[in-house]
Amino acid sequence: MSVKVGIIMGSDSDLPVMKDAAELLEAFEISYELTVVSAHRTPKRVANYAEQAEDKGIDVIIAGAGGAAHLPGMTAAETSLPVIGVPIKTSKLSGVDSLYSIVQMPGGVPVATVGINGAKNAALLAIQMLGVADNNIRQQMKDYKSEMAEQVKETAAEVEELGYEKYLAKQSNE
Amino acid sequence: MSVKVGIIMGSDSDLPVMKDAAELLEAFEISYELTVVSAHRTPKRVANYAEQAEDKGIDVIIAGAGGAAHLPGMTAAETSLPVIGVPIKTSKLSGVDSLYSIVQMPGGVPVATVGINGAKNAALLAIQMLGVADNNIRQQMKDYKSEMAEQVKETAAEVEELGYEKYLAKQSNE
Amino acid sequence: MSVKVGIIMGSDSDLPVMKDAAELLEAFEISYELTVVSAHRTPKRVANYAEQAEDKGIDVIIAGAGGAAHLPGMTAAETSLPVIGVPIKTSKLSGVDSLYSIVQMPGGVPVATVGINGAKNAALLAIQMLGVADNNIRQQMKDYKSEMAEQVKETAAEVEELGYEKYLAKQSNE
Amino acid sequence: MSVKVGIIMGSDSDLPVMKDAAELLEAFEISYELTVVSAHRTPKRVANYAEQAEDKGIDVIIAGAGGAAHLPGMTAAETSLPVIGVPIKTSKLSGVDSLYSIVQMPGGVPVATVGINGAKNAALLAIQMLGVADNNIRQQMKDYKSEMAEQVKETAAEVEELGYEKYLAKQSNE
Amino acid sequence: MSVKVGIIMGSDSDLPVMKDAAELLEAFEISYELTVVSAHRTPKRVANYAEQAEDKGIDVIIAGAGGAAHLPGMTAAETSLPVIGVPIKTSKLSGVDSLYSIVQMPGGVPVATVGINGAKNAALLAIQMLGVADNNIRQQMKDYKSEMAEQVKETAAEVEELGYEKYLAKQSNE
Amino acid sequence: MSVKVGIIMGSDSDLPVMKDAAELLEAFEISYELTVVSAHRTPKRVANYAEQAEDKGIDVIIAGAGGAAHLPGMTAAETSLPVIGVPIKTSKLSGVDSLYSIVQMPGGVPVATVGINGAKNAALLAIQMLGVADNNIRQQMKDYKSEMAEQVKETAAEVEELGYEKYLAKQSNE
Amino acid sequence: MSVKVGIIMGSDSDLPVMKDAAELLEAFEISYELTVVSAHRTPKRVANYAEQAEDKGIDVIIAGAGGAAHLPGMTAAETSLPVIGVPIKTSKLSGVDSLYSIVQMPGGVPVATVGINGAKNAALLAIQMLGVADNNIRQQMKDYKSEMAEQVKETAAEVEELGYEKYLAKQSNE
Amino acid sequence: MSVKVGIIMGSDSDLPVMKDAAELLEAFEISYELTVVSAHRTPKRVANYAEQAEDKGIDVIIAGAGGAAHLPGMTAAETSLPVIGVPIKTSKLSGVDSLYSIVQMPGGVPVATVGINGAKNAALLAIQMLGVADNNIRQQMKDYKSEMAEQVKETAAEVEELGYEKYLAKQSNE
Repeated sequence: MSVKVGIIMGSDSDLPVMKDAAELLEAFEISYELTVVSAHRTPKRVANYAEQAEDKGIDVIIAGAGGAAHLPGMTAAETSLPVIGVPIKTSKLSGVDSLYSIVQMPGGVPVATVGINGAKNAALLAIQMLGVADNNIRQQMKDYKSEMAEQVKETAAEVEELGYEKYLAKQSNE
Repeated sequence: MSVKVGIIMGSDSDLPVMKDAAELLEAFEISYELTVVSAHRTPKRVANYAEQAEDKGIDVIIAGAGGAAHLPGMTAAETSLPVIGVPIKTSKLSGVDSLYSIVQMPGGVPVATVGINGAKNAALLAIQMLGVADNNIRQQMKDYKSEMAEQVKETAAEVEELGYEKYLAKQSNE
Repeated sequence: MSVKVGIIMGSDSDLPVMKDAAELLEAFEISYELTVVSAHRTPKRVANYAEQAEDKGIDVIIAGAGGAAHLPGMTAAETSLPVIGVPIKTSKLSGVDSLYSIVQMPGGVPVATVGINGAKNAALLAIQMLGVADNNIRQQMKDYKSEMAEQVKETAAEVEELGYEKYLAKQSNE
Repeated sequence: MSVKVGIIMGSDSDLPVMKDAAELLEAFEISYELTVVSAHRTPKRVANYAEQAEDKGIDVIIAGAGGAAHLPGMTAAETSLPVIGVPIKTSKLSGVDSLYSIVQMPGGVPVATVGINGAKNAALLAIQMLGVADNNIRQQMKDYKSEMAEQVKETAAEVEELGYEKYLAKQSNE
Repeated sequence: MSVKVGIIMGSDSDLPVMKDAAELLEAFEISYELTVVSAHRTPKRVANYAEQAEDKGIDVIIAGAGGAAHLPGMTAAETSLPVIGVPIKTSKLSGVDSLYSIVQMPGGVPVATVGINGAKNAALLAIQMLGVADNNIRQQMKDYKSEMAEQVKETAAEVEELGYEKYLAKQSNE
Repeated sequence: MSVKVGIIMGSDSDLPVMKDAAELLEAFEISYELTVVSAHRTPKRVANYAEQAEDKGIDVIIAGAGGAAHLPGMTAAETSLPVIGVPIKTSKLSGVDSLYSIVQMPGGVPVATVGINGAKNAALLAIQMLGVADNNIRQQMKDYKSEMAEQVKETAAEVEELGYEKYLAKQSNE
Repeated sequence: MSVKVGIIMGSDSDLPVMKDAAELLEAFEISYELTVVSAHRTPKRVANYAEQAEDKGIDVIIAGAGGAAHLPGMTAAETSLPVIGVPIKTSKLSGVDSLYSIVQMPGGVPVATVGINGAKNAALLAIQMLGVADNNIRQQMKDYKSEMAEQVKETAAEVEELGYEKYLAKQSNE
Repeated sequence: MSVKVGIIMGSDSDLPVMKDAAELLEAFEISYELTVVSAHRTPKRVANYAEQAEDKGIDVIIAGAGGAAHLPGMTAAETSLPVIGVPIKTSKLSGVDSLYSIVQMPGGVPVATVGINGAKNAALLAIQMLGVADNNIRQQMKDYKSEMAEQVKETAAEVEELGYEKYLAKQSNE
């Protein structure tokens, strides 16, 4: 099966966040590739990456970057594929700089922005986009949501049964 | 052809912004429907809308809301379709409240957020998502981008030729 | 005695904050129940919870949530009971996102918002609301305020008597 | 019938906002009084007002103020009644100053804060609090919510029927 | 000699910051008193403190508070003495809430605001105010500024002589 | 009588705000001087102004500036007199830039900061500082506060008597 | 003489701001060129522009952009020339988005950022950079600063002579 | 060879950040000097430093400061050389105060601002400015950019080859 999702990030320091996207795609058995592409240090690589992505059959690109975060927007400029942007939390401005740099794109070139450090949600969004063309993937997404709801209900049941004191005590023992 | 995109908004006061999405979809000849669904005043309608949307064959939902903007997130909670959120500019906090309320979704339930008042970009993003399943639509998107680039080049040529003073004078005469 | 106050939160990770509300209600001997209800992962549970709450005789609901915090607002959408919202501090935006998502509700659907992580104050506010119907509870609140004032005066007397150096030294020894 | 709700504000310049609370209480036929009490220019009046309010049988106080907005918090300091704070929008900081000054109260002294300029929601919240003691009022609140939902549905139906262009055209003609 | 400066704070948790003011006044041999006065938990104490302060011959009041910080403004409301406000850094909003609550006072009731946690500068400002009436104190302030400049020059000379590497190494050894 | 207060500002564009300080000093019959001193365009004038101010017998300096507002801080650097800073509202960042540039001074060099555009309060603060040395001025300040309280009470009485509708109607007729 | 400064902007809507840079360069008789280059709509044009700029002998590039402003940073990525970034004020976030997107560049790729809408200062900064290689230009800059100081002194003299009332009256008549 | 770049900072506590500029200039073999100059504690030293800098042949000044950061702007006021400002991160407002105090300079006196704690980028910007007059330095800058791009490519290749899990494991072992 060809690669469906491309995950890129501006620096390997973004990897501890962006790996969440890779892990979730693996759980859904969606094939992906992951690499480092710096908009500022390797600008030509952005255009090349975007073009090759289309040729490889990639359908969605996930791009994470922090600070003056230009990678998602510049990737979106170079491709007609949907691009999902992940604003990385920064030590100075907590990722507000990353968020504004990614979400406030001009008319004509959208980036589908998720929350700060929201790499997991970026993967889920990619899966929802793939689901537009693939009912099996859409069904997987439905199952995922059902399971997630089930877990909340189990947690709720446990909190209600134990009471908050025992529940918190149990958690701190784990 | 069945409806492909659902456009919803929290109030008819959002319509002057959200109509940009409708207009762009019309230009691409993508069928859509548009209505008002208030997360806070008609909460049950959100769930109903999401379920009916899937049944009607809608592939992408665009939801606009302002202030404590819960419509995009609550729609995303109720469907497995991708949901695009448009933060509406507010008179008090300029839309930062809308943006934070839409983009900072918890793990498991993404909203593809565009810029404040970015209804046009929401439509383009919806088109890119539809393009995952339809090469004709993807080609339309490519053509759109080419045309957009052409327009920038024409503007640039005119600014260069006229100089900024004559260009600005001409614009203020128009 | 029937349950008077319902405490809900979006995730069990909110429990270390929200337990402050439970502890204060216990100190006032107000009966309450506490559980986890996720607006985004279990949206139907919100409506169910709100309806059951009214049936159980609950008079006030306290709802805590963080990030794009929709639980308080969606609960308020589904009930005619007063809803108190507790914005949970987040690691990325310090709870400004939570605050804006909770307090900036549209006309028609208020949420009584307290400060970030203000679960204790949420409980006091719930008690003041119950006091509208119950003079004993209102008297309890008066006693609480008197005692609180007394404690400040004792602290002040001790600071004045010891001087700030000895007071701080004594505190760091405790 | 005795006065149930007290509406106070820091300055008569807040009246164009705060009158929304009065109008809504009138629509619900809840008796109220309304006056100007400046925390900074007439500090002793705050304590007097709070004490007299309790004696008059007032159950809820709504206090609006802008900038370094101390009136809601100082009123809450002087009474055991629930106090609802309305942050007034300011020309310099858009009401963020008012919001922070009202919502971030210390433990022990809550203010039930509504959105910036949210005087109408303050009145609805007061009504919900009165409903704790009065089932007729709670029923009125339920009717209000039903009517509100009905209006949204009518708007939605009209938007769907006319389409957005005619709907907007009709609005601009009205 | 009578007490010249009154230092008050909303809670003993502010003492580790506010003690800087006391220490600096001691270094200048200005007599002061220091205590805890909570605007919200002991509102009547604020008025009493302000009146007693004038009677004791206090000329300047320094008031520190955090969050919805009302103590400086309410003290200013109750006295004609100049009041210096110290916004205390908070764990949630970093003191922006404290700063806005103190500095944005309405026309008629100023608070002389210093930086977040700026208790030392509050004391220097109090000394400058006392210097309006006392040339000896003004001379002390001049000497303080000269000494401060001298220290910067010594630091500069040492940095220049050692170079930044040795200077930093020396500092980390101390 | 010698000049007591110096009012300076970074640009004549600040004059429509800063004139409020002059008007209030006139009302108190405090002699003052007013001029333009740009920290950035005439840096040497700042030092000269500060030195001449002390020689002329000026006791307090009021300095207004906007944006990267350095005038209050640089004046404070050059004098031992108390300096009151007025952050001027800016068209881009609403005066948050001015406020941060003025209030966040380093240890050793305080600026007594008032609210954004708070020139009137700056004058009142200057008067309170002069009151440290002059009981007549302190008495004037007390009278001013009494009168201000009286006006609030009159406004309150009128609002109560007329009701909010007639009061607002009367105001819009004036 | 060859072109020394290149002025580019993301859209012709930035021209009313960016023309200030052109006008100032004209006043200094520095040759420049000015055009429109959109990072997002014409990404390849950015690289081309940067390369041609170096070949034409341009020494400094001034780039203005608003929102998710990528043009200055992407230009800096593609050239070794110094790039000056002008954050354009936006209707939604007042240019804070533009500022963060431009100034928070990662290590290795600086952009010399000026204030929001600071096109005039961008030109002055370009002139100072050219002055590194050309003493005549540096002298021009000195003369400019002297003249600017002279103007402030004249304004100050006029304000002092007329008094603020007559000065403001005169201005409103002009 | 004469000194080309002057590095100054407001306090020796800024040295751990500002040393990055020195280290980078050393790597480029650009001669520099480094010292401490406090705008607020040694205001006359700023003017002296600026004048001596020009006389020593310095071409660019890098100035770092935090909080109400006046050093870069006041240095720019006193010289015709280009001044690069480094906003230092602060413990209270994360450097937003420093950034606004440096970047929002008035028309006529620019400061070339880099990101918060961006001392390394300040040095690169200084090198680009020196490159205006010196082709060897410009070539060095080109080589630096090439090397930087090469490193990103190597990182990318390693991430692609190892996969993210092994890459992260390897990093945590180093």
